[in-house]
Amino acid sequence: MSKGETDILQQQSYAMVGGDGAHSYAKNSSYQKGAVDAAKELINESIANNLDLKLIGFNTSKAFQVADLGCSTGPNTFIAVQNIIEAVEQKLPHETLEFQVFFNDHYDNDFNTLFKTLPSSRKYFASGVPGSFRNRLFPKSSLHFVHSSYALHWLSRIPAEIVDRNSPVWNKDSIQCTGSVKGVTEAYATQFENDTVSFLDARAEDIVPGGLMVILTLAMPDGIPMSETANGVLYDVLGSCLNDLAKMGIISEEKVESFNLPIYNATPREVEAIIRRNKYFTIERLEELSNPVRSIPFTAQDYTVNFRAIFEEIVKNHFGKEYVDQIFYHFTERVAENLSFIEEKTLDIIDLFILLKRSV
Amino acid sequence: MSKGETDILQQQSYAMVGGDGAHSYAKNSSYQKGAVDAAKELINESIANNLDLKLIGFNTSKAFQVADLGCSTGPNTFIAVQNIIEAVEQKLPHETLEFQVFFNDHYDNDFNTLFKTLPSSRKYFASGVPGSFRNRLFPKSSLHFVHSSYALHWLSRIPAEIVDRNSPVWNKDSIQCTGSVKGVTEAYATQFENDTVSFLDARAEDIVPGGLMVILTLAMPDGIPMSETANGVLYDVLGSCLNDLAKMGIISEEKVESFNLPIYNATPREVEAIIRRNKYFTIERLEELSNPVRSIPFTAQDYTVNFRAIFEEIVKNHFGKEYVDQIFYHFTERVAENLSFIEEKTLDIIDLFILLKRSV
Repeated sequence: MSKGETDILQQQSYAMVGGDGAHSYAKNSSYQKGAVDAAKELINESIANNLDLKLIGFNTSKAFQVADLGCSTGPNTFIAVQNIIEAVEQKLPHETLEFQVFFNDHYDNDFNTLFKTLPSSRKYFASGVPGSFRNRLFPKSSLHFVHSSYALHWLSRIPAEIVDRNSPVWNKDSIQCTGSVKGVTEAYATQFENDTVSFLDARAEDIVPGGLMVILTLAMPDGIPMSETANGVLYDVLGSCLNDLAKMGIISEEKVESFNLPIYNATPREVEAIIRRNKYFTIERLEELSNPVRSIPFTAQDYTVNFRAIFEEIVKNHFGKEYVDQIFYHFTERVAENLSFIEEKTLDIIDLFILLKRSV
Repeated sequence: MSKGETDILQQQSYAMVGGDGAHSYAKNSSYQKGAVDAAKELINESIANNLDLKLIGFNTSKAFQVADLGCSTGPNTFIAVQNIIEAVEQKLPHETLEFQVFFNDHYDNDFNTLFKTLPSSRKYFASGVPGSFRNRLFPKSSLHFVHSSYALHWLSRIPAEIVDRNSPVWNKDSIQCTGSVKGVTEAYATQFENDTVSFLDARAEDIVPGGLMVILTLAMPDGIPMSETANGVLYDVLGSCLNDLAKMGIISEEKVESFNLPIYNATPREVEAIIRRNKYFTIERLEELSNPVRSIPFTAQDYTVNFRAIFEEIVKNHFGKEYVDQIFYHFTERVAENLSFIEEKTLDIIDLFILLKRSV
């Protein structure tokens, strides 16, 4: 906050012991719990006798409410939110609007880092909201503008049948939709459809009629198989690194066979069809975005650091912490060998910009 | 969330790499930033052309908004919030209300743990709000019920004059208001007054007219010096442990002299006077709370774990991580020696329950 928050520089803050270890506040605050218990009856009485719900009403706030869904840790989310706020302010140059921004991501997102790096110059009230954006996360009709960047193409789960050795669509030769087994891409697509339907249903509830939602996502061009895009090649390079390490006896073959990346890049046409089935949103825009970073040549190291920031947690959870460095070291080497081939293909995948309006 | 959130058990979540280290998403997401930059102009156009602010209005949400200020990591905050929600629901048994709860604490509070331990059976939309509650944290008139437990008696800073060797109120023989130097308690009291005025001013803005605020805090009985209360004795025991370690050459004497605890326990009369000066709140109740935990005998170990959960971060920041275990080990021994004396005094300090109403 601009207002008063500059003062924070001189203020000190004193956090209780975090985590849930032996010395944590969470485990060692029985005295404070006693008071909370003792206050229960007083609070009941206070609400029964002192709260006049008719008088206060429920809708006195005039703040413009923005949410970024799948925000990760920043700084991109802060830039996106700033863009939105400036555009709304431009529209109402003579009014003083207050903004409340909700940063959402999974429960295991690093909100501590997100909060500590919030821009000190921000002109909004910041808030973090943990949980899957495929569920309701906000009160009914409370959001005016929703933004979601590089999040929608993540799946809520790996389709069960593609990791089942006895299934006809067992994805044994790929870690994504790049392999030779028929039906794998369809299984991924069905999961994406279910997830996106849940996402849109939840947003239809929490976005105010007339409110907007911008979705940025990676999409596949029509008619090109995933294996022939740069991303597909990178997935296959990671897959072959894992196979190499399995052959060297460093990680188990079974682990490699059961590893799949939980993302699906739909085509613009697929995305459009799913949205059209949801009767609460109209598609105002759906177009290819021109990402300026695409024209900057990436080194093998650049690809690795980007890839690792995204996939390290998944690799770690599946194979174990001790193999992560080795896997990504190997990955960098293999990307370097295939660099010109990957470069050739980078223009294939699409950054898609979608603008939806919640029907009135 | 009850609704839909049960589903989360089968869902998987995939966090980007947290923190701000070399492999973090925060440092390695230039591609995603490119898209955010590229989308800026499109978002400007979307807001200019597709957002009808007159149509959507700003106040369509009907949720009852609750905030717990100084929530720490739980579980006490979850119990307090649950009590509030049940009491409001009892008042409107025939309506289906939605609740949005804001958990607030400092930027360095462990929100990651707070979020991961949110009760799965909760019937509210949860949100974390980082920052000092002496500043504005919420949009104007947006909160219906504010709760703050064991937080108001924390000061935003140690009064500068009590750590200045050249000041007449240099607090050389105590780590709180328990020493022999005249004027130290007044310096603490002034800081508490300034902090509480800021707290009330900020809340006058963000609580809706007619909304309620419950404050639980530790208070001093009138006319008893801090040094003669159980808490005062515990502070002095910690102070003498630090002196012992300094004499043994383990920590520096200077460090001990400059160490003070940033808390002040006002008397009910002092608190009341400060609140009465704020014209936006009426005092509906101000009374002693009967904390059931007080009747349970505490061992020296019990005192230490409670004390450590609260003060470990301060001790660590001031003396260094490597001395924390030793300081609190020593503290436990000294508390054990003084246990009967401390027990005698535990009834002196007051748990205070304050109910304020935001004037209409």
